Amino acid sequence: MKKISIAGATGYTGIELLRLLVKHPEVEIAALTAESHAGKNIAAVAPSLKGWVDQSLVKLSPQIAQECDVLFLALPHTTSMKHVPELLQSDCKIIDLSADYRLQDAGVYGDWYQTPHLNPELLSQAVYGLPELHRKAIKKAQLVANPGCYPTGAILALAPLVQQDWADSTSIILDSKSGVSGAGRKLSQGTQFCEANESVAAYGLGDHRHTPEIEQELSGLAGQQLTVTFSPHLMPMTRGLLTTAYVSLKNAIDLQTLHDHFAKFYKNERFVRVLEAGQYANTAHVAGSNFCDIGVQVDTRNQRAIVTSAIDNLMKGASSQAIQNMNLMLGIDETTGLDAPPLFP
Amino acid sequence: MKKISIAGATGYTGIELLRLLVKHPEVEIAALTAESHAGKNIAAVAPSLKGWVDQSLVKLSPQIAQECDVLFLALPHTTSMKHVPELLQSDCKIIDLSADYRLQDAGVYGDWYQTPHLNPELLSQAVYGLPELHRKAIKKAQLVANPGCYPTGAILALAPLVQQDWADSTSIILDSKSGVSGAGRKLSQGTQFCEANESVAAYGLGDHRHTPEIEQELSGLAGQQLTVTFSPHLMPMTRGLLTTAYVSLKNAIDLQTLHDHFAKFYKNERFVRVLEAGQYANTAHVAGSNFCDIGVQVDTRNQRAIVTSAIDNLMKGASSQAIQNMNLMLGIDETTGLDAPPLFP
Amino acid sequence: MKKISIAGATGYTGIELLRLLVKHPEVEIAALTAESHAGKNIAAVAPSLKGWVDQSLVKLSPQIAQECDVLFLALPHTTSMKHVPELLQSDCKIIDLSADYRLQDAGVYGDWYQTPHLNPELLSQAVYGLPELHRKAIKKAQLVANPGCYPTGAILALAPLVQQDWADSTSIILDSKSGVSGAGRKLSQGTQFCEANESVAAYGLGDHRHTPEIEQELSGLAGQQLTVTFSPHLMPMTRGLLTTAYVSLKNAIDLQTLHDHFAKFYKNERFVRVLEAGQYANTAHVAGSNFCDIGVQVDTRNQRAIVTSAIDNLMKGASSQAIQNMNLMLGIDETTGLDAPPLFP
Amino acid sequence: MKKISIAGATGYTGIELLRLLVKHPEVEIAALTAESHAGKNIAAVAPSLKGWVDQSLVKLSPQIAQECDVLFLALPHTTSMKHVPELLQSDCKIIDLSADYRLQDAGVYGDWYQTPHLNPELLSQAVYGLPELHRKAIKKAQLVANPGCYPTGAILALAPLVQQDWADSTSIILDSKSGVSGAGRKLSQGTQFCEANESVAAYGLGDHRHTPEIEQELSGLAGQQLTVTFSPHLMPMTRGLLTTAYVSLKNAIDLQTLHDHFAKFYKNERFVRVLEAGQYANTAHVAGSNFCDIGVQVDTRNQRAIVTSAIDNLMKGASSQAIQNMNLMLGIDETTGLDAPPLFP
Repeated sequence: MKKISIAGATGYTGIELLRLLVKHPEVEIAALTAESHAGKNIAAVAPSLKGWVDQSLVKLSPQIAQECDVLFLALPHTTSMKHVPELLQSDCKIIDLSADYRLQDAGVYGDWYQTPHLNPELLSQAVYGLPELHRKAIKKAQLVANPGCYPTGAILALAPLVQQDWADSTSIILDSKSGVSGAGRKLSQGTQFCEANESVAAYGLGDHRHTPEIEQELSGLAGQQLTVTFSPHLMPMTRGLLTTAYVSLKNAIDLQTLHDHFAKFYKNERFVRVLEAGQYANTAHVAGSNFCDIGVQVDTRNQRAIVTSAIDNLMKGASSQAIQNMNLMLGIDETTGLDAPPLFP
Repeated sequence: MKKISIAGATGYTGIELLRLLVKHPEVEIAALTAESHAGKNIAAVAPSLKGWVDQSLVKLSPQIAQECDVLFLALPHTTSMKHVPELLQSDCKIIDLSADYRLQDAGVYGDWYQTPHLNPELLSQAVYGLPELHRKAIKKAQLVANPGCYPTGAILALAPLVQQDWADSTSIILDSKSGVSGAGRKLSQGTQFCEANESVAAYGLGDHRHTPEIEQELSGLAGQQLTVTFSPHLMPMTRGLLTTAYVSLKNAIDLQTLHDHFAKFYKNERFVRVLEAGQYANTAHVAGSNFCDIGVQVDTRNQRAIVTSAIDNLMKGASSQAIQNMNLMLGIDETTGLDAPPLFP
Repeated sequence: MKKISIAGATGYTGIELLRLLVKHPEVEIAALTAESHAGKNIAAVAPSLKGWVDQSLVKLSPQIAQECDVLFLALPHTTSMKHVPELLQSDCKIIDLSADYRLQDAGVYGDWYQTPHLNPELLSQAVYGLPELHRKAIKKAQLVANPGCYPTGAILALAPLVQQDWADSTSIILDSKSGVSGAGRKLSQGTQFCEANESVAAYGLGDHRHTPEIEQELSGLAGQQLTVTFSPHLMPMTRGLLTTAYVSLKNAIDLQTLHDHFAKFYKNERFVRVLEAGQYANTAHVAGSNFCDIGVQVDTRNQRAIVTSAIDNLMKGASSQAIQNMNLMLGIDETTGLDAPPLFP
Repeated sequence: MKKISIAGATGYTGIELLRLLVKHPEVEIAALTAESHAGKNIAAVAPSLKGWVDQSLVKLSPQIAQECDVLFLALPHTTSMKHVPELLQSDCKIIDLSADYRLQDAGVYGDWYQTPHLNPELLSQAVYGLPELHRKAIKKAQLVANPGCYPTGAILALAPLVQQDWADSTSIILDSKSGVSGAGRKLSQGTQFCEANESVAAYGLGDHRHTPEIEQELSGLAGQQLTVTFSPHLMPMTRGLLTTAYVSLKNAIDLQTLHDHFAKFYKNERFVRVLEAGQYANTAHVAGSNFCDIGVQVDTRNQRAIVTSAIDNLMKGASSQAIQNMNLMLGIDETTGLDAPPLFP
């Protein structure tokens, strides 16, 4: 049994990691950290876990990395990088759910996160933890940067397209719709029930921090530098992330051809379900699972491909994807502890 | 006092018309029709109206038009046109909330609604009931075709832009997010609570019937034939419709210039609120009102304008806009009975 | 035109007061206060009101009372009583939406609010602002204590029953279900969207602060000292408050008799709608209105009356009831600015 | 591997059974029936199961029982009993999720379901499938009547109390709050999104069909005939069922004593979690799991115990409890395939 610790165990992604790890056959929980709740029992802060985890929360320290095999960092952006260099001194493998090691270029990080990266030298050794694209590298990595929820949905929706030379590379628009849990568990007015309920609105148009991550990965697949218009929206629901991706096609492609290409691209991927041609991905059909559903459509009147992808933002968009990475890093079957149907309704 | 009747009074748009009309100082309710509920009291089918309307539902007949000044038709598409020719024989003014008289070209209607128009000769006399664009013609019309909810939000979001020569006319994408009430009150599996709750999905991509209506109006403003990609999505909320409109700009335009143009375009419109530059429209801030909020943004990295518009789909997207048209047709102040703040939260 | 000011204008009850007051034909807005947002424009904090109120928020001071005819206090419990004595020095009428002047007995206040009352001498001059019970006294009052949302629904549900000698006075149970807006706009973990959504739970069983208020009023009606079991629950919705009241009957009473008594009791009350015998009150049918719907039922197997009442907690449970009180205090028609149908759906 | 079939596989309880059974290590799926969808692939009707079950739906026939070890009947009330006698001819074990075999007294069934029982002779051999009360009998049964969702929550909340001689047996009130999925997947106006959202209301007060089931089981525990007031309410959420149970105490009992009795009563029950004294059960903390959380409180002012219980109505209230019964009937560990933490948020 491998020993697993979680830094930031009381947020939504921390609780979700725990929900999955307590049932994972190859691991056991070591330390759980939470700065403000240190000293409390985890079940007092996460009552759903009563009877499953019964231990006190502690503060994060380098020793925690020394005493476990894998350490998940469910910490805020710009906080992870304060700890990672010291934590990496141990043999512990680190899966960072923040954005701090997702961008290969420290300058791009500095521009979008408005603070210089504290240890740019580590960026080259960090692997972007999207298994469908970087499985081999993840297996060998000590430090994996778990993708953001929006980038996961966006990149999986467009990877098959940009990898071909079909798309007008200047035309990519990603209109994304996220459940409120994507904003985390910290208090804020916009995520209060009465503000978010019966409310749909965009935010961060043109400058959301997940943009460079999407561009980095799609550019890598396309073999050329791409930019995208990425538009996040907040939806009145707890879980779920739908991405509607628009791409102008250089030449007319019919729906069946496009669909077959997607189906082939993902045919060996357990956690990507390409729906039948003309069907639409729906967040309700992936909730509670590690699946990404993808629907392909062509607007023939405008020679435009429209791809919809649906994930559970706390699962494939965060915690279950992090465990998928853990499985790869530990050399065990990638689907261990993750291969279960979604919860519907 | 003018006499007002409603055909299809028990659906959501019918109930919303009644909610507003019982408080309207210049009108009184004449007949209310409902085919399946005929004989019942309206308050039995719409309990919110108990104490406000106390009359039996009847079946639609030509006599109803003869005995009122304005008749609202809240009937399904393709049903309205079966009745309108006979109803128009009276002096009664008709406001049709269905799609049957929105398209000027009977051929386009036939293509999108998959049935030939029954009285194409009436199309030229019907006026498209978007007061912000067609106020003068509405005042003189006997037959007004009330716009669809999606077209209302989409056209108002883009009118200022396409009217200028700023947009790449092949680049228009409308990603729209609607509350479930937009689907009406008839039973269907997709609108059951457990299917729609915690669910976000697209539908009708590339072939939704509101598309030609949007194209007709935007083409008129642009002075050239436009096509658009229109993508409706269903949201887990009752009311509200957010449109996110993407347009590539022929030349770089800064946010302030774009915003000032929108503010100027709508400066005399009581029911359009142009938000400050860089703010985003939110459905929660227009619920229960006739307002359309518009937010303007520029994605400078991709030289693309992003306009968000929010309406209450049952109000500015249907019933209150219909009353705005009624006011114009009756020659009374356009805002009568409509000028009230939204309900928040 | 009477001048109206609001202390605490940016909370949900403050915004709701403003929504109604800007349409009220007999009043105009004077000052709006908000401690933390002082200096900002109200529309920046309450975007739904854009175009309706355009003024800066100020801090509360005695001068505000001097410059208006009616001052609404939408302040937290125990804060109102710090200001009221000084504010009452002016001729201004005060409607306090907090609990500070609802209880006639300062000792009871001290027990339940866990702090001594600061000006117990004012309690006897404050009138409990439930117009259906205290209309005459409200008309003459300078200080009205606006009832809590739970007490409003509970007292209206049981007033006709306890006024008769039908009930076992030891048997009263009030199981209440409130929308989240009842908790106000301040940040708290329990009212975050992801905590409240898809969640139903009780809180404060046996010790909620609204209990003595309910007991005071029902005891007054019964002519004897009553105690009740009051059980509040939080519901995953924004607005609405359903009370299910259980009372053992001393003798068998049939449904029709009970219903007729309720109908007669409220027959002159514009804002109470007694539903047909055997129907159930539903929060969705009163949303956005000042109505209280009441449904009467008898569990004959257990000789128990079950009364359901539904109100909009921000309206009849707070702001519109406060305006109903204002109308009475100003000597104008009680329904002015309030008589509109609910918003459904 | 045991062969398992499901009659009525496309409703919510059928889909939930499948979600759990495809991961159950000791079983495999045999036939899936659905009358109206026969011939379709199950994944077309239940898209969440895509990739998990890939077989055609068939119509129910006696042969199905002959070819499986356990048959779940997820059929409507009064339909199950038309099939059960013939199905029981095989050696197949039957778990009926309808109400048809829950009541031991055919006369009581006839009264509440308003139709005579078709095979009253089978009632004595059917076992009421609440494992916490009837574990031994379930192990030996060929026919198990799976409890209703409301009765499960109600009986578990009160079993420890009525088993003692502490309660006034005439005082029991059960105020229950259910998510909409409890109404099943069939179309109805009350379960349409726009009718159920932002709506809380009671229904069936005094005559809901789950009442006799609750009374039968509580009477058995109490050793005397009890009646209860049972009040179901519909909540604007998909899953979850909270029961608030009120019982007058014959003598004063303090909270700690009551709590300790509950904790002791359930100390060996894996799926009942007795919360700390004074805490409240919350549906959000059991969603997606087989757990029943129980919170105990005493209203000392009124000498009344208030017990809250929370279950997931589709899980412990239906499908996972059915599998718990299946495990017992098959002689395997009772928790197999069920022992997982709830999904939060």
